[in-house]
Amino acid sequence: MLLPQNVAITLQETLSRQLRDAILAGTHAPGSRLPASRALAQTLGVSRVTVEAAYARLEAEGYVRRRVGAGTFVAVAPLAPRQGRPSGDAAIAGLSRRGSATVPDGILPTMPWGRGLHAAVPDLRLFPRVLWQRLQSEVLLKGPDSLFDYGDSRGYLPLRQAIAGYLAQSRGVRCDADQVLVMTSSQQAIQLLASLLLDPGDVTWLEDPGYPGARAALQAAGASLVGVPVDDEGLTWREQALPTPRLIYTTPSHQYPLGMRMSLARRLALLDYARAQRAWVIEDDYDGEYQYDHAPLPAMQGLDDAGCVLYVGTFSKVLFPGLRLAYAVVPKPLVPALAAARRAFDGYSSQIAQAVTARFIEAGYFAQHLRHTRLIYRSRRDVLLEALHPLRDELVPQGFDSGLRGVVRLPPGKEAPWTAAGKLAGLQLRGLAGLYLGQPGREGWMLAHATLDHAEIHEAVAQLSRVVHGR
Amino acid sequence: MLLPQNVAITLQETLSRQLRDAILAGTHAPGSRLPASRALAQTLGVSRVTVEAAYARLEAEGYVRRRVGAGTFVAVAPLAPRQGRPSGDAAIAGLSRRGSATVPDGILPTMPWGRGLHAAVPDLRLFPRVLWQRLQSEVLLKGPDSLFDYGDSRGYLPLRQAIAGYLAQSRGVRCDADQVLVMTSSQQAIQLLASLLLDPGDVTWLEDPGYPGARAALQAAGASLVGVPVDDEGLTWREQALPTPRLIYTTPSHQYPLGMRMSLARRLALLDYARAQRAWVIEDDYDGEYQYDHAPLPAMQGLDDAGCVLYVGTFSKVLFPGLRLAYAVVPKPLVPALAAARRAFDGYSSQIAQAVTARFIEAGYFAQHLRHTRLIYRSRRDVLLEALHPLRDELVPQGFDSGLRGVVRLPPGKEAPWTAAGKLAGLQLRGLAGLYLGQPGREGWMLAHATLDHAEIHEAVAQLSRVVHGR
Repeated sequence: MLLPQNVAITLQETLSRQLRDAILAGTHAPGSRLPASRALAQTLGVSRVTVEAAYARLEAEGYVRRRVGAGTFVAVAPLAPRQGRPSGDAAIAGLSRRGSATVPDGILPTMPWGRGLHAAVPDLRLFPRVLWQRLQSEVLLKGPDSLFDYGDSRGYLPLRQAIAGYLAQSRGVRCDADQVLVMTSSQQAIQLLASLLLDPGDVTWLEDPGYPGARAALQAAGASLVGVPVDDEGLTWREQALPTPRLIYTTPSHQYPLGMRMSLARRLALLDYARAQRAWVIEDDYDGEYQYDHAPLPAMQGLDDAGCVLYVGTFSKVLFPGLRLAYAVVPKPLVPALAAARRAFDGYSSQIAQAVTARFIEAGYFAQHLRHTRLIYRSRRDVLLEALHPLRDELVPQGFDSGLRGVVRLPPGKEAPWTAAGKLAGLQLRGLAGLYLGQPGREGWMLAHATLDHAEIHEAVAQLSRVVHGR
Repeated sequence: MLLPQNVAITLQETLSRQLRDAILAGTHAPGSRLPASRALAQTLGVSRVTVEAAYARLEAEGYVRRRVGAGTFVAVAPLAPRQGRPSGDAAIAGLSRRGSATVPDGILPTMPWGRGLHAAVPDLRLFPRVLWQRLQSEVLLKGPDSLFDYGDSRGYLPLRQAIAGYLAQSRGVRCDADQVLVMTSSQQAIQLLASLLLDPGDVTWLEDPGYPGARAALQAAGASLVGVPVDDEGLTWREQALPTPRLIYTTPSHQYPLGMRMSLARRLALLDYARAQRAWVIEDDYDGEYQYDHAPLPAMQGLDDAGCVLYVGTFSKVLFPGLRLAYAVVPKPLVPALAAARRAFDGYSSQIAQAVTARFIEAGYFAQHLRHTRLIYRSRRDVLLEALHPLRDELVPQGFDSGLRGVVRLPPGKEAPWTAAGKLAGLQLRGLAGLYLGQPGREGWMLAHATLDHAEIHEAVAQLSRVVHGR
């Protein structure tokens, strides 16, 4: 009876369903007698065997009782009347306050990104699919059964080790594999940390303008959000003017969205402040791997000896977003609690994907892919800046020295009309307006250079130029 | 400089790091002059080029300032003294109340399950890896770039359609693809629903004894948990005696852990009650696909016309846990809010895994795999019950007519000592004691028949017999 896949629902099933619906609707009162199977078969023009089978099924399910020689009787009461409430209406009434706060408010862009000036994603055409497929096939065919089983909520150990090695060498993160927890996404890392460290109403500082994903995660955790302005050296705060935070969220390598990197002096001052206040700092290093013009500053995590920095990184920008792998590096005492939270929230990440990624790193393909894509993205960045040069009176670039995108600042009052004009011309443009927590400040667009080749960049900027010049 | 993968950290890097550490430790005061590069090179016995490179890097990072003809000066203040707090200590002080409630309390078993009487998981040896690898390779090599990109937090449409079709035909769930949301796990579905529908302190009914995963998820959402007893027909409640719930969590197809199925009369009564109270019902159908002795009862979701049932299912038992795919079926008005919560919590599930699963279902392999494994699991269940028969005075089986495991009830006072004796004999046994919210009731073990072949079952029961008879 189970799973008549790809075949029509049988006559007997149709009949069972109709009888069931009629009983629940009250067409046959509890205790009333259903027609004899022979009579019903004649009425419906089906075989008696079909009716008998349907009755037997309803009996097994508890809808009817059959007594030999007496007949088939309805065994359950109909569903109570619906009290005039339309189907699904409960859903509207039933959201919690917390749930209502999570309902979409348009700050998170729709997916997928595809390609274009709006798409701060890696160029998926550059990804070595064949190589990946080979590693994946090896894992699927020869990997141990344990990779298919329930897994460790901290992550797959070989991947945690590979991440720790990579972060120590290239990002100045000081950790061993024990401190690395594999996550689905930075989003999950921020959300789990927020849920573990914040009680509803706890003050959290965010850069303003800042990353909407973090805002959504912190909001879902019930944080009381305080926007903190940024200047050319990153987060800038006057302690007296702001409520003391329990958590500070920051993007020091490449501020989201404005693109500056936090100066060393500011990093040290922020660490001192966090330590003094016993506040946590989430350092979101979402695309710090792509540095074009200078050696990367080591992560704040590497400067922290008080154990207050929670480092978050992702494979979404350096491999591909669909991989669904990211990581958090946390002080050792926090590891069991974070692993427990992960277990309670969704369990653990795909160990097969983790095993493939670990092999990709161990074999040196990851370093190779990073070097290759960094060269390409740098040349695309150069082409974009050059192409934008003639528009320099209207579009002022900043934050292009690292990452997959930067920002162009716009003359006051232009962001909204030019974005709308771009949309009419088929050009997706991501403005800054939605990224402010407080009063919107500077106007601008985030422009991504990573997914377009040189010709496509020139074409996109030509379109942009027509939008800006109203032609 | 980035990513010297698989090579030793260079001399220059070592030197930069030492200087950095010395500056941050206060060995060189802010403004003080570092040795000339020639002198330092001589002292250390390295080339002057190395020292120059290290100084240039520190300057780029903001640690020093260099003035031509004058020298190299420390540019930052040392980190504030640590105030006697050992590293990572902040982690202990810093958990939120909510976070502390999530810290491991031993109710969730450790992973992986492996194989044995304790393992209520599918037999991974039966999984068609080669077939899966072929489908996976097709998706990786020929699938559109969009599968590698950011994805839809509701899930990949072809999989949602395949799930809707399967559920309608085999589980009596009434839905269309719009109402299906793909999740990482049942755990995530329960957790997201709880977070969306419950405010901290909201009363939630759970079956007692019940599923610890649900308990952990609901606890993390701040629910006020009320254990409701179960009898042979499932959940049994006296309305006057219990606080009115906002949410009811139940496992009607195969009660966790006791294994009975909820009678139709009880299902209808529970629906009536939930509707009258405007309470939500989570119907967790975690292994309802495996029915051995009778046609499955249609899901409660299919009986619900008030839109209060939230149906949760998973591929963990019917494919493999490491796949990380499950689903929720919810009333339409709830879909946008649940998708938004998913976006805020971790984003979306791997679209590549979703595409492979969709093809596996569409091609009929899923139905085939279910039929095949159901026959095997049924014969293993038969062998287990037969093997247990000689122990019937001590071990009383129940709940074996569906799913991957049942329960044997034990004489009073025996669960703890026999479980400990089993452990000494190398036999993992999962008792019921930890599954009660209130006072522990009946004693017993959950025994799983799915991962062992006939010979292994006989061997395991022989061990069990020695434990029970103290030999």
